[in-house]
Amino acid sequence: MKMRKPIPVKEAVDRVMHYAKSGKSETVDFTDADGRRLAEPITATNAVPSFNKSPYDGYAFHSHYSQEASASRPARFKVVERIGAGEVPSKRLGAFEATRIMTGAMIPDGADCVAMFEVCHDDEENGQPFMEIKRKMESGQNVMTAGSEAAEGDLLIEAGSLVNPGTKAVLATFGYDKVAVAIKPVIGIFATGTELLDIEEPLEPGKIRNSNGYMIAAQVKRAGAIYKDFGKLPDELELSYQKIKAALDEVDILITTGGVSVGDFDFMPEIYKRLGAEELFNKIAMRPGSVTTAAVKGDQLLFGLSGNPSACYVGFELFVRPVIQKALFNPNCYLRSAHAVLGSDFPKPNPFSRFVRAHLEYEEEGLVVYPSGIDKSNVVSSLAHADVLMVLPGGTRGFSKGDQVKVLLLEDMRGSETFLL
Amino acid sequence: MKMRKPIPVKEAVDRVMHYAKSGKSETVDFTDADGRRLAEPITATNAVPSFNKSPYDGYAFHSHYSQEASASRPARFKVVERIGAGEVPSKRLGAFEATRIMTGAMIPDGADCVAMFEVCHDDEENGQPFMEIKRKMESGQNVMTAGSEAAEGDLLIEAGSLVNPGTKAVLATFGYDKVAVAIKPVIGIFATGTELLDIEEPLEPGKIRNSNGYMIAAQVKRAGAIYKDFGKLPDELELSYQKIKAALDEVDILITTGGVSVGDFDFMPEIYKRLGAEELFNKIAMRPGSVTTAAVKGDQLLFGLSGNPSACYVGFELFVRPVIQKALFNPNCYLRSAHAVLGSDFPKPNPFSRFVRAHLEYEEEGLVVYPSGIDKSNVVSSLAHADVLMVLPGGTRGFSKGDQVKVLLLEDMRGSETFLL
Repeated sequence: MKMRKPIPVKEAVDRVMHYAKSGKSETVDFTDADGRRLAEPITATNAVPSFNKSPYDGYAFHSHYSQEASASRPARFKVVERIGAGEVPSKRLGAFEATRIMTGAMIPDGADCVAMFEVCHDDEENGQPFMEIKRKMESGQNVMTAGSEAAEGDLLIEAGSLVNPGTKAVLATFGYDKVAVAIKPVIGIFATGTELLDIEEPLEPGKIRNSNGYMIAAQVKRAGAIYKDFGKLPDELELSYQKIKAALDEVDILITTGGVSVGDFDFMPEIYKRLGAEELFNKIAMRPGSVTTAAVKGDQLLFGLSGNPSACYVGFELFVRPVIQKALFNPNCYLRSAHAVLGSDFPKPNPFSRFVRAHLEYEEEGLVVYPSGIDKSNVVSSLAHADVLMVLPGGTRGFSKGDQVKVLLLEDMRGSETFLL
Repeated sequence: MKMRKPIPVKEAVDRVMHYAKSGKSETVDFTDADGRRLAEPITATNAVPSFNKSPYDGYAFHSHYSQEASASRPARFKVVERIGAGEVPSKRLGAFEATRIMTGAMIPDGADCVAMFEVCHDDEENGQPFMEIKRKMESGQNVMTAGSEAAEGDLLIEAGSLVNPGTKAVLATFGYDKVAVAIKPVIGIFATGTELLDIEEPLEPGKIRNSNGYMIAAQVKRAGAIYKDFGKLPDELELSYQKIKAALDEVDILITTGGVSVGDFDFMPEIYKRLGAEELFNKIAMRPGSVTTAAVKGDQLLFGLSGNPSACYVGFELFVRPVIQKALFNPNCYLRSAHAVLGSDFPKPNPFSRFVRAHLEYEEEGLVVYPSGIDKSNVVSSLAHADVLMVLPGGTRGFSKGDQVKVLLLEDMRGSETFLL
């Protein structure tokens, strides 16, 4: 049996990222841009507001004529026009003239302030509307100046950002009816192992249902890529080699689960050899997932994730997700990390770094992390409840409630520029 | 002008939630379940593992026969069978007999432990394989007992949970090829205002492009519902009334933006009256979004959000999102909150509670929140960069860097059982 030398997690990440490729862009309709990542920065195509605008319903006039106004001697204005949002004022205001103006409407020429309805008093003389105000207004008061929120050409959103509801508002405001976004890389998935049944098959002795393939498909989607599910492979070397070889023509990146350990039917190392793929590593100083393997053939990355569901999950998030982020123009390729306090004892030491499925609570005293896989019962459901991976450095001692630990945020979509370990 | 009486935010939320309806369920294929919310709890349809299983590649035998093993006197076993994962052992092991066993394979009868390859030494006598071990093994060592990870009938995932990659693994493991999920409620959207242009139209004096409608559509999607975009309505009462009345037949909930203030063309209050809808509130003690209005007609909720983009955004997240969550069986209807430290001064006081677009950093000393809308420049892009709403209670003083504040997490999908203010 060949002994494998484990490398540190950070080195494994670096080896993989050395081969990660920058993305390509495509143009999609505005409507289809949700959840995509911007291939180009978004800049302001016009000033906002593009005209001097009223932020309130009220009266526009020149503040000069209100300087002497008081409770006992209100300033009195003739109301010469009424304009709603979207209308263009036709009157230029003179001395003691005002325009009744609605929120969002254009400030007329000759006006430099807006007084809200609440501080004005309306009346009429022979059908002619007038308005009185008992306080003085300042020049510029309640006027949104053209360009005060954004100047034409301003950088608004960086390339690589995820299109969220706020992004949609920005794109719409500036007329981006077509949007340049990153092309989603295509990630192929094979689940290996003669023990695997399809989801709709009844259990048989010695067999389990394929869950890793479907789990990774969902992880690929969450990471922003497209999956191509090639189904299951039995423990047969020649067949597996042929199918994997063929699949490489259809995908950007290929993931297999299982077949990377030292068992008699762990064929992935041999398949990499036959493919002429160079193994980047086949053992990492981590738990779970120490047998996680990566290889490169030409410019294609191949990931051999563990067949153990937790190890498979962790291997994807640590090694495959950053490669996908790079292809999506996201400069923050890595999982975002946070500092938290351990919410329960985790006594068993391990010489390797551990990535423990856990959930994060935002408590009054700060972030507290609760490992989900602390006892063996319901290991299965702990994957569904995890929103972070708790990072426990390898060593000779266990960890106690109250210890400071780092966590990696699985549901965060911003990410981090550096792999923080 | 009718004076409106502002009510506290919490009371506005309660009034709306009083009319929020529980969800309905539908059955979808496993493949289409991603991102949906479970309508029913998921339970274990079988024990996991469903048989005693080896977690390693190695040899299975009865530990009894290794009790005398030592470096100088190894225990020697005849290897009578080899089984891979998915195979069923055919041999029952007797004294000093072992089965070569692969990770995930079924433990044969007569064996009670597995020794990893690393601690065993292989050899052969006349073509018959043997194995030697220099240490004693304990009963149960390296055996995953049937049911040790989940027992049949165990509750694994609660109703209302979002289907994430880990959930998919669980569903697949237990053969849930059909999944009962919440039917997504349909949310209609109208953007009101004569000033609104379509996204592909060039700017005109006094006009702006409709951005709120598209922003809300994306917020509806993020919240897990379906949007139905009815486009724009000009400031014409009769036409608006007719279109809104007709739209109510096609949706579960209706959102309009704009038209809820006190301007001459703010027709929504009149439209609610004509519809026979009961106004739940039309003024909230909050900034932005004090004019946010809600009404109920029969069992349908109508939301009149502000035409101001920030106010519209906040109004949706505070009042519409929890209603959607309830329809999705999510018991944690409200935005999840966290405690953070203010990262910069926010000096201007306001008598109303404020919900400030901000982004959250996970720093070593804890959570730090940085308001995005602190100066007026780039108000527009601040919506795209916000991942939290910072909550500043109303009062007579401003806030300083280092102050403790609460934040509401916009991108969190778990939520909170209570509205925490």
